[in-house]
Amino acid sequence: MEPDFEKAGGLVPAVVQDHETGEVLMLAYMNRAAWLKTIETGKAVYWSRSRRSLWLKGETSGHVQLVREVLLDCDADTVLLKVTQIGDAACHTGYRSCFYRKLAGGDFEVIGERMFDPQEVYK
Amino acid sequence: MEPDFEKAGGLVPAVVQDHETGEVLMLAYMNRAAWLKTIETGKAVYWSRSRRSLWLKGETSGHVQLVREVLLDCDADTVLLKVTQIGDAACHTGYRSCFYRKLAGGDFEVIGERMFDPQEVYK
Repeated sequence: MEPDFEKAGGLVPAVVQDHETGEVLMLAYMNRAAWLKTIETGKAVYWSRSRRSLWLKGETSGHVQLVREVLLDCDADTVLLKVTQIGDAACHTGYRSCFYRKLAGGDFEVIGERMFDPQEVYK
Repeated sequence: MEPDFEKAGGLVPAVVQDHETGEVLMLAYMNRAAWLKTIETGKAVYWSRSRRSLWLKGETSGHVQLVREVLLDCDADTVLLKVTQIGDAACHTGYRSCFYRKLAGGDFEVIGERMFDPQEVYK
């Protein structure tokens, strides 16, 4: 049994959550190859829609995600990964979570914590 | 400022998380109308891809989601809702979370907690 990749053109969204704190870190997409690679290696591998290639999360930054749990939703069209985020930040902007902006009074304000300077990490 | 609905054909995924426990309850999709309705009413409204219509979550079951926080990701193409789930279950199958199956030894096993009998709720 595996996710239903055909339902939405070959990709399923993967919600990524910190295994210990429950913080939602990011959302990415997997095709079947990314799924199999993730299961095989225990490190999160996604499909980059912009680059159109497999993407080992943390390949450049070293901030890989060690997969602790893999869950599947009722319709088998979304997966949830519980991970240990190496390097403390999941977002390429240096924030711990990609969800670092919160709606407040009709606008978004930054509430996230910046863990690194992207210019230092991506040289 | 609002999510980038155009990036993926009018829809953005919405990750839905329990406001208190951090449990990820489900993933759904929003078009701009669903987004505006959610902000306006404080109750989660999605776009049903199968029915091709706006969907007030809990319309049939009464299990609405009261939206406590709305977050936007770095690319503005995914939203995260922190909600209070009325009726204790987000999934139409009666489980608290749609992610009630966990990968274990090559197969998925049910780890979720069933909060109601769907046959009693959806008559």
